[in-house]
Formats: sequence, structure tokens, C-alpha cells
Amino acid sequence: MKAVVFDETLKLVNGYTKPSPKNGEALIKVTMAGICNTDYEITKGYMGYKGILGHEFVGVVEEVNADDKSLLGKRVVGEINCACGNCDLCHQGLERHCFNRQTLGIWQKDGCFAQYVAMPLDTLLEVPENVSDEQAVFVEPLAAGLEILEQLHIQPIQKVVILGDGKLGLTTALALTASNIDVLLVGKHQSKLDIAKAQGVQTKLLENLEIKKEWDFVVEATGSISGFEMALNLTKPRGTLVLKSTVAASKEFNLAPIVIDEIRVQGSRCGRFAPALRLLASGKVDFAPLVSGVYSIDDAIEAFEKNKEKETLKVLLKF
Amino acid sequence: MKAVVFDETLKLVNGYTKPSPKNGEALIKVTMAGICNTDYEITKGYMGYKGILGHEFVGVVEEVNADDKSLLGKRVVGEINCACGNCDLCHQGLERHCFNRQTLGIWQKDGCFAQYVAMPLDTLLEVPENVSDEQAVFVEPLAAGLEILEQLHIQPIQKVVILGDGKLGLTTALALTASNIDVLLVGKHQSKLDIAKAQGVQTKLLENLEIKKEWDFVVEATGSISGFEMALNLTKPRGTLVLKSTVAASKEFNLAPIVIDEIRVQGSRCGRFAPALRLLASGKVDFAPLVSGVYSIDDAIEAFEKNKEKETLKVLLKF
Repeated sequence: MKAVVFDETLKLVNGYTKPSPKNGEALIKVTMAGICNTDYEITKGYMGYKGILGHEFVGVVEEVNADDKSLLGKRVVGEINCACGNCDLCHQGLERHCFNRQTLGIWQKDGCFAQYVAMPLDTLLEVPENVSDEQAVFVEPLAAGLEILEQLHIQPIQKVVILGDGKLGLTTALALTASNIDVLLVGKHQSKLDIAKAQGVQTKLLENLEIKKEWDFVVEATGSISGFEMALNLTKPRGTLVLKSTVAASKEFNLAPIVIDEIRVQGSRCGRFAPALRLLASGKVDFAPLVSGVYSIDDAIEAFEKNKEKETLKVLLKF
Repeated sequence: MKAVVFDETLKLVNGYTKPSPKNGEALIKVTMAGICNTDYEITKGYMGYKGILGHEFVGVVEEVNADDKSLLGKRVVGEINCACGNCDLCHQGLERHCFNRQTLGIWQKDGCFAQYVAMPLDTLLEVPENVSDEQAVFVEPLAAGLEILEQLHIQPIQKVVILGDGKLGLTTALALTASNIDVLLVGKHQSKLDIAKAQGVQTKLLENLEIKKEWDFVVEATGSISGFEMALNLTKPRGTLVLKSTVAASKEFNLAPIVIDEIRVQGSRCGRFAPALRLLASGKVDFAPLVSGVYSIDDAIEAFEKNKEKETLKVLLKF
């Protein structure tokens, strides 16, 4: 089969061995996949991963290696963390943090940028009929945005500001606004902010934002350490700074404000798919305006190049 | 009056003007005070503070400028943050975070290393009869330890590890253990750990600690960035790292583990005095073993020198 593989270099391989579903797994014919910044980070060495890239996909179940064949022929999406099911964390419902987990296209498991992918049945969810492939492929980042609501109780009267108008910030803003949270999205690009604004999100250019410690929740989605420092200057005392982007401080960085203002810095990563699918099915969010390009798997390398461009939001691969 | 003043240099001033209690304030004759690391930090420039140092004290109310004279002649301690009472934060019960607050001996208000201090009546609490001055003077750091229980719900079956056996770590360990929390205190000094051990705290030398992400709560009380990094390596996924010490990263520092493991980093500072006084009155904690020296106000400079010594825990000033 065709597959996009990273092994020191990024390449399109023709003739990669088609996976065989193990016991309890399904074989999925991938129809669409999305390129995430994590994929790009991996090509720069993140996680030391080698293999087929990709963790955002929609596909159709072609084969099931289990007694329950109910998903056969169904259009599905798949949660990306494959847990062991036997450890303390799994028993506590923290399968996404299982130390023995494999993560699709990120850690010890071939990803979905291929014509076929094998996934454990319990990671798969059927896609509602009214949700197109082009929308369903956003379920993973949308779930990551909704993850904030699994971790934190945001009261209806509380105020949330999201810093960063890249796809992480946009997706989180759409997810929270569609959940009737009072959200302000702040970024540097009017054109990107306008995408969110068209779907009811309050937006503001960074240059017009008053820097004041008055926000109950600040979501850091800029991916830069200066964004993190600004987030600290916007969070009210006893407030919460949600850290979505994985940043590194390369200069002197003072943690004292976290202590003095008793701020909660809450790391936040992947979310569950069911609430995200429900939101997609409701039609309250529309990801079409985030699509910067749709490429055939044959043009995957070109698609990765497109993904690097500053103005690009989401690049999709079609199979 | 005599006062310990920092104004570019640290000095004992004889003849400092005795304060006059404003409306709603009391004049307190200080009987005992404690030197905190924050005092030492101020002498190195922290907060840019100039004036009388000190924020940990016990004293007797000599004068009350208010109708309610009930505290006259009583032995009292005083909460260190004097809030405006009129802002949004004050109205939300977050007086300790009031942006207009003055903080005793730290910010815009003369401290308690003097024969007299004037304090708002609503910051004062009467010391129970069975609590000696030598114990009561620890109410502020003890309250800071108990602050963790105001901020976080620690379940009885959850595990807490405290890193650092200085007075911050020791006090926090005593506070939490006396609250029937499952606590392990980890440090580098057997003699300091033994002080906690004698009061029922579980202890371990750092060299014997297994570095494993298995702790529900990790309290960082080492005051070093390496302590913070170790704390991250001990916190279980979705666990909480309580940041007590104000540290600065001077080298490259990666925040990614906070996101990947979805850790909550909770800044924690001052606490309320009432629960701390209740704990002192219960006799469940004994701070006598933490006292490294008691100095007359006349020997305050020498007391500050003693405070700098590595083996020193608490240095007290007697008036």
C-alpha cells in the first residue's frame, strides 16, 4: 500500500506492507487524513518516532478480527491512544495516560497516512451520517479543545481568553464557544480571527488587547514562551492558565508569578471523541473554512510543504 | 522605638517613629517575631521593598482606634495582607490577592521587626491561651502550609510527597500530616527529616527515593529549578504539582511534560490563620525543634547572619 513514512527523511513509500488486524482490531481503509503540527514536529525529531505518520483520519472498516462485527462497513474515526487496559492508570479511566500506550503515528504504532490502518476496536467510533469526511477528520483536534471541559469546571459567568489564532487556538475557540462558554480569541491575523468570528466567536487583535490580570481562564495556544508569559499576565489571581502548546523556555524564566498569584497552570492534551462527534453532528461548528488544501496521498510531500507555510491552517490528505 | 530596617542596607534603628493606629487599626506591642526567607530575599532586592522588615509576629494589643475594643490587652497574631476591601477580588473573598493590598514588611507597609506595629483590626486573631509565643509565631508559615488544603481537595487515599526539608517543607509536612493526609517528606538532611519524623511524618532521604511518576500530589519546597524538574518526574499523569517556592529557570526549561501528562501546576502562597491557630491549639504540631536561635531585637543583625547559615531553620527575635 501507499504510506507516508518518516525515517530520518520524509518519504512516500509505494509497497508498504498492508497491516493485518490483530485479535480485537479492525482494518480500516483510510479515506481522509489531516496533517497536524505534531506530524511536522516529528519530522524535526520529536518523540524520536519512525514509521508511518499521521493520527487524524476517517475511514471505512473493511475487516474485523473479533466476534462483534457490528462496525464492519461503517465509516469510523479512531482515538489515537491505544492503552494496555491492565495498568493502574487504565483502571482509573486514564487510558490516555497509560505508560504502556501506543499512540497512532506518534509512539510505537504506525499512523494513518496510509491506505490502510489497523486499530483496536475499542478506539473506534462510528461517524454520524450527516458529518462529512471533511468535517469528521477534525474530530481529534476538536476533542482536544473539548478536553478543557473534561478537566476544568468553567462556570457560565466566567471569562475565557484564548491566545493564538493558529488551528489549535481556532479549534479550541470554536469548541468552547459552541459549548456556550464566554470566549475571546486573540491573535495577530485578522483573516484567521474572522474565521472564528463568522461562527460566533468573540475576537480581538492582540494589539488591541489590554494586558490586565482579569481573566478566569487563559488558554495558551501560541506555541511560544512569550505567549506563556503573556498568559501569566492575563490570568487573574487564583485563575487558571490552560497550557495547550508544548513550549520550551530558552531564556531565564521566572515561575514566581505562579506562586504569588496562586495560578493554576493546567496542562491539557487529547480529548475523548464522543463529545466532539456530537458537536460535529449538531452542525454548531464548521471546519470547512480551516481547510487550506486537500492533496492526494500521491502528493503527500507537497502537502507537507504546504503545511509549513505561515498562512496555512489545515492540510488534508485524500485517499 | 527600635526597628530592623532595610534601606539598601540592613540596620537596627533606634528611635524609629512609633506608629499611630489609624481608624480601624490596633497598636500592637510586639513580643516575638520570626525571620522568614522572604526577609532575607528582600535584603537582596526582592520586591524592591524598603522599610521595617518582618511579617511573622505575636504581640499584645495596647491601643485600639475603633469602637470595638474587645481585643485590647489580648495576645494576637496578624494576617499579613491588608486588603482594600472594595475591589472585585476583595468582594470575591480573595482579599489576599487584592491588587491594592499592602503586605506587612513586604509591600508598602512597615513590618513587625519593631517594638510596635499598627495593624487593621480585621487582620488580627487572638492567640489561644495554651499556645505559647514561641509556637504562635509560626502561625503564618503554618497557615501557608494549610493553604494547600484550601486550594485542593486531597482525598484521604491519595499520596503526597513534599520535596525539600527546609522550614517550608518541614512546616508543610507537619501541617498536612496533622490533617491526616498521607505525606512523605523527602530531603537531603537526615537531621532535619528527623524533626518531622518525631512528629509522625513519613520521611525519606532523597537518595533513597524512586523517581517514578506515581504521586497524586507533589509539593515543590526546595526553592530550586532542579527541584521543580524532579517534581515533574514524580507527579502522576493528571496529578498536581504544588509550587510553593518562588524559583526561576535560568537554563532551557521544557514545559512539554506538563502538557503531555496533563499536570496541574498549582501556585500556593499565604493561608488563613484561623485553621493554623486551631492546629497549634490542638497540640498536634510542635515547632520548638525548628527554632535554631532566639535573639534580642538588639542583636537583630546577628540574627540575620544566623538565618543565612545552611543548617539554620527558624531564627526568632524577642522584644
